[in-house]
Amino acid sequence: MSKNPDAFTRLINALKILPNVGPKSAQRMAYQLLQHNRDGAQELSEALQHALKQVHHCERCNTFCEGTLCDICADSSRDPRRLMIVHMPADVSGMEAANCHDGLYFVLMGQVNPVQGMDLSHIALDKLVARLQNSEVEEIIIATNFTAEGDATAYVLAELFKNLPYKVSRLARGIPLGGELEYVDAGTLAQAVYERRMLKE
Amino acid sequence: MSKNPDAFTRLINALKILPNVGPKSAQRMAYQLLQHNRDGAQELSEALQHALKQVHHCERCNTFCEGTLCDICADSSRDPRRLMIVHMPADVSGMEAANCHDGLYFVLMGQVNPVQGMDLSHIALDKLVARLQNSEVEEIIIATNFTAEGDATAYVLAELFKNLPYKVSRLARGIPLGGELEYVDAGTLAQAVYERRMLKE
Repeated sequence: MSKNPDAFTRLINALKILPNVGPKSAQRMAYQLLQHNRDGAQELSEALQHALKQVHHCERCNTFCEGTLCDICADSSRDPRRLMIVHMPADVSGMEAANCHDGLYFVLMGQVNPVQGMDLSHIALDKLVARLQNSEVEEIIIATNFTAEGDATAYVLAELFKNLPYKVSRLARGIPLGGELEYVDAGTLAQAVYERRMLKE
Repeated sequence: MSKNPDAFTRLINALKILPNVGPKSAQRMAYQLLQHNRDGAQELSEALQHALKQVHHCERCNTFCEGTLCDICADSSRDPRRLMIVHMPADVSGMEAANCHDGLYFVLMGQVNPVQGMDLSHIALDKLVARLQNSEVEEIIIATNFTAEGDATAYVLAELFKNLPYKVSRLARGIPLGGELEYVDAGTLAQAVYERRMLKE
């Protein structure tokens, strides 16, 4: 992009930080925004600023929210005895759309990578332990992805709960192997919750 | 995304304006930015603002630039007798990388859509006509895409030049059928320039 103006190149480079966006896509996005959708570009810029300022983590479940508690944690009609542990906020949305879990959630905001040495710093384990202290939780449903990372994360969680007084289950393998939660349809998601395998009673 | 906070949803909606970004990708991008790359999100927001403010069109060739003239139009070593007409700035970059054209460019910043009634308002025809007034241009190379839109645009241009005193050519069909310029490798691009078909001498 040697002959491009600096501001344009800077925008292309900034767009490349988005997941799955390479140099060609970034170039096309920058062109699309500046030539055909300047209002959209303005809104995107402002939405980023607004989100950076407003979005924090729910004190209880660690998902993104604007106040102290997210809508689900603040909802007293949810069953506090069942806690479902997921990778990221999109997984909560998927579960809610499937309408198969009336308990609460905990969002790890990351996964363990078994290839890179099972580094636990990417998942909010400390916050999870604190969440369970003096809680009403009786059953924990591990709803991590059925990928290498999700399996490793589930293993770490199962080890963590081994000597603690909770029922622990993991989603049934109704979800296709290698699949990631956010791309699974609601029906399959629901079946995987109903048929969850007990790991420990 | 019913249970997501407003600022998060707003960001997801803003990301959906990007080409080829659907609801799932937008959700993943928003999560990635807010959880793992807040500096990147900040930079993207600022780069958008900067580009919206700084990037305008080159007075001569209509590409994106920050001053009055782009680097190529301002370069007196380029041959002003050959003018290559392309769809968008990325095509100029591709040609420059292929190093096969030492003339100047004109960027239409759009294509004619034959399905939607050959509307000419999306391409900068008026600016192109003004560009050619009293110019040194002798040969025009039509370098639009080899898609339905690119062919329709080439047809409109060929009609425009029919009674004007220019040599007019189009890129050789060395470029794969259905392909778009920005995804073609430099060697193929160069060959298509060298073997351009004369439409009119």
